[in-house]
Amino acid sequence: MKYAIGIDLGGTTIKGGLVSEFGEIILQTMINSEANSGAMVVAEKISEVIQDLFAFSQKNQIEISEIGIGVAGLIEHEKGVVHFSPNFEGWFDIPLVDLVRSSLTSPICDFPIVIENDGNAMAFGEFCHGGGASAKILVCMTLGTGVGGGIVIDGEIFRGSRNVGAEIGHTIIQADGALCGCGNYGCLEAYVGRDRIIERTREKIIKHGKKSILADQLDNLTPKIIADAADRGDDVAIEIFTETGRYIGVTATTIAHLLNPEMIIIGGGISAASEDLLFGPIRETVKRRAMDTNAESLRIVRAKLGNLAGLVGSAMLAMK
Amino acid sequence: MKYAIGIDLGGTTIKGGLVSEFGEIILQTMINSEANSGAMVVAEKISEVIQDLFAFSQKNQIEISEIGIGVAGLIEHEKGVVHFSPNFEGWFDIPLVDLVRSSLTSPICDFPIVIENDGNAMAFGEFCHGGGASAKILVCMTLGTGVGGGIVIDGEIFRGSRNVGAEIGHTIIQADGALCGCGNYGCLEAYVGRDRIIERTREKIIKHGKKSILADQLDNLTPKIIADAADRGDDVAIEIFTETGRYIGVTATTIAHLLNPEMIIIGGGISAASEDLLFGPIRETVKRRAMDTNAESLRIVRAKLGNLAGLVGSAMLAMK
Repeated sequence: MKYAIGIDLGGTTIKGGLVSEFGEIILQTMINSEANSGAMVVAEKISEVIQDLFAFSQKNQIEISEIGIGVAGLIEHEKGVVHFSPNFEGWFDIPLVDLVRSSLTSPICDFPIVIENDGNAMAFGEFCHGGGASAKILVCMTLGTGVGGGIVIDGEIFRGSRNVGAEIGHTIIQADGALCGCGNYGCLEAYVGRDRIIERTREKIIKHGKKSILADQLDNLTPKIIADAADRGDDVAIEIFTETGRYIGVTATTIAHLLNPEMIIIGGGISAASEDLLFGPIRETVKRRAMDTNAESLRIVRAKLGNLAGLVGSAMLAMK
Repeated sequence: MKYAIGIDLGGTTIKGGLVSEFGEIILQTMINSEANSGAMVVAEKISEVIQDLFAFSQKNQIEISEIGIGVAGLIEHEKGVVHFSPNFEGWFDIPLVDLVRSSLTSPICDFPIVIENDGNAMAFGEFCHGGGASAKILVCMTLGTGVGGGIVIDGEIFRGSRNVGAEIGHTIIQADGALCGCGNYGCLEAYVGRDRIIERTREKIIKHGKKSILADQLDNLTPKIIADAADRGDDVAIEIFTETGRYIGVTATTIAHLLNPEMIIIGGGISAASEDLLFGPIRETVKRRAMDTNAESLRIVRAKLGNLAGLVGSAMLAMK
């Protein structure tokens, strides 16, 4: 059996795992990413995680020979460079692969290291061992603070002409709509990003005076708390998730018409809401809006690998 | 030099051409497509065009060995079947390649015949010899009665998982927007399809009482007449094209974020409007709305092959 090391470099933590070719994680580790200490320190932290996983693999006679790293942002995977990352302030054209390699000891410092955008890595993880196993055309969507994504076509990550494709959060769903963090108007993220879900809930209760069991915790709302209230039958919370599903359904319809994918996989914290609550309205919207063949060819499913998709995907990319 | 026969099968005419590998059309012919006479008759008409072109090629010692046909609709190119075509009422799973072949005489009845969706063929024509020569990722948009399109990725037509990708007219630009012919709301086509451009002009003049030199020809408006009025400085006509450009710019922004193409090529009757009138607002919208790298990597240009793109593209596909 083949194994690789997968790394998911986030703004707060570095997750690492020893992953088999079948997507099993046989050892997992996590440390603080020290995001504000500069690229050199972050690279050293990544190397630490890699060395630890490598030590474990040697002790257990597990052979590994590749390393994959997933990072949010504009990643120039051919050069091993982070051009820009929203999680690391001030990073600009950081040669992360070289930095990590320079902190590794022999023999692992000579192993191939691949780096990939986290949305792409997640999509590839789901393609290999998750909800989208072997789909011809697969689009992944992650719902969190922002809305990210990845596209896999015929088993290959689709990156666009300059590595900035699959920005699913910034597909426009309402031309004259809400202002988005990116400066544009009417992006999907301006409706279903984490903070916007909370704001929309507050608006319904404060501005429109709707009754809700959430009324006494308006300052500590999270999508999870809203989803729980919906599960307990709260009308405002149900409405919020129905609307959220419809907004996502509009983007899913556009994607169905443009790319005609076999599968859209939805992951990220907000997708943890119960099936009926979120996936129901998404599927119903696509069925109602999309043309027949485009709708019929599409399955919309929940991500299977959860927050380990990036780690698994990075390892799979490294093994490829 | 290599040559192939390209056929553009439309609802009213069949255009055929003898096309060199460099995209030159050395002989072009056109006949009525007899769209209402049934598939057998249409196939015979196509065969006639092919036989004529072949006879010419033999007389002039031009060697051809492939035939390509472009048709609107859902085309199953692997099977040579027209699953459905908006231009041919009642056609359902028509084995057009077999029908055409059965009407051809030897030796041309044994030549390979490929069939392709017309938007895909046009995109491939523009990729090979038009405005998008050799772009890594190319999206084509045709503005006419409807809004069609095609996508070429790394030199290959991108068809989607079931041949219904690149339905650019049905990307949603306004979730709660105008009703589209497809039954959905807020599709691009519901704003910039030929009839909608005319209706929007009439609305401005009749409903909103705006002054325009078009006021005395409201029953015979065409996009061409409106474009001419704009060129003569008519405010309503200029406004119509500015808005049309902005609507297209919204879809172009979504495409820039999703596919990060190197190039969007715009063709079709309505794109014949002068550069400033239509392309200005499209480019300005993308620049304002899209994220920096996505906007910078994208060039938006006019189709070069005009209404011959489908014919040239079909021939190129056949030669491939």
